[in-house]
Amino acid sequence: MSAKTAKAEDDVAGLKKEVAKAAAELIENDSVVGLGSGSTANYFIEFLGERVRKEKLGIVGVPTSRASEEAAKRFGIMLCALDECERVDIAVDGADLIDAKLNLLKGYGGAHVREKIVAAAAKRFVVIADYTKRCRAISLPVPVEVLPFGLRLAEKKLAELGGKPALRMKEGRAFVSDNGNFILDADFGEIKSVKKMEEKINSIPGVIDNGLFPFEDFSQLEVYIAGKDGVERLRRR
Amino acid sequence: MSAKTAKAEDDVAGLKKEVAKAAAELIENDSVVGLGSGSTANYFIEFLGERVRKEKLGIVGVPTSRASEEAAKRFGIMLCALDECERVDIAVDGADLIDAKLNLLKGYGGAHVREKIVAAAAKRFVVIADYTKRCRAISLPVPVEVLPFGLRLAEKKLAELGGKPALRMKEGRAFVSDNGNFILDADFGEIKSVKKMEEKINSIPGVIDNGLFPFEDFSQLEVYIAGKDGVERLRRR
Repeated sequence: MSAKTAKAEDDVAGLKKEVAKAAAELIENDSVVGLGSGSTANYFIEFLGERVRKEKLGIVGVPTSRASEEAAKRFGIMLCALDECERVDIAVDGADLIDAKLNLLKGYGGAHVREKIVAAAAKRFVVIADYTKRCRAISLPVPVEVLPFGLRLAEKKLAELGGKPALRMKEGRAFVSDNGNFILDADFGEIKSVKKMEEKINSIPGVIDNGLFPFEDFSQLEVYIAGKDGVERLRRR
Repeated sequence: MSAKTAKAEDDVAGLKKEVAKAAAELIENDSVVGLGSGSTANYFIEFLGERVRKEKLGIVGVPTSRASEEAAKRFGIMLCALDECERVDIAVDGADLIDAKLNLLKGYGGAHVREKIVAAAAKRFVVIADYTKRCRAISLPVPVEVLPFGLRLAEKKLAELGGKPALRMKEGRAFVSDNGNFILDADFGEIKSVKKMEEKINSIPGVIDNGLFPFEDFSQLEVYIAGKDGVERLRRR
């Protein structure tokens, strides 16, 4: 890695912390908080734990993955399973891409199914990211979680939809999600209609869910982006 | 039960056997055959096993449930997991309802997710039923398989789509599918557009799949119906 690249990565890590801290400041006493997964969400969990400790903030966290559950425990956040919560007041999570319409692409950490469930259950859904995640249109591969039983069929059907699916691997074996399923990363090039593609992929028998979060389905979405000039807040009107 | 009702049930069982036998006659040597679940599919497995035994028919079965796997073993049919098959030549399965357009409703046995995967993978999809399964439009509750993590959200979203979801129970506990998930039976009354409803339900985060089989997705479908005048074969042109 060149000195310049290392400097840029340090800058991005700094921006992730900045936006995570801004989101942690949003959390009110007595809230039920969805805890996202990934590096930026982890900073959020850390800052939130700090507030719990220092300010005796009374909150309960709803984890979206085993990893976020462990992070929450490490930083002293009380936890509650989604099915045992009366409500989720706010969910805070990262994203892999955010397009100009505020469609999201998630799932590069493999937790998008539970992340989408918690986000959809939350009254307020705050996505936090650094500026490198913004894009004009979504054109990276879409993570698709699929029952092992339906793997071959899903590969075939994703190809029929114009995608190039690749089975996600980890340490020489198929990656297994927290739900016990496989993930196909399906490259569609640039996606014209995120909502339609999301529905088409989810209609493939054996597919659990995919990493596309259409803006139409998340009217409560707020996006916080950290860049050179501080944290910018984006909403659809 | 009145003598008349008992007689009617006997008649229906006879029709199930008749149509199952007709489907078993369709199977050619060297076929890979999807084996459906439920009472009519069980008769099919029995008749197919008879042909394997008597005619030394060389076939391999792909089960859609633990129940159909056990039935196939009992009747001497060699088995292959879906992911290990090069192809599925023909899938034979029952249905809970068949409407005038040949949309299907399945899943009253709780196996619709794997049944849909095998049907979609098959070159030929033969549905066998007695005439009591035909209807003008689908208006019985739709079985929806959902991750335990997403149960509450799915209940809420199904209600937003106009459905009345009820958690399927068995022996005083929540019914658990072969995939380890729960089933919500969602009553929508009469469903106007099966394809649209199928996609909307599948777009709920945490939903695996539902029991609606839109005719548009199964162009290879043939429906065999047994009635008073023998077995009728239906296809969309």
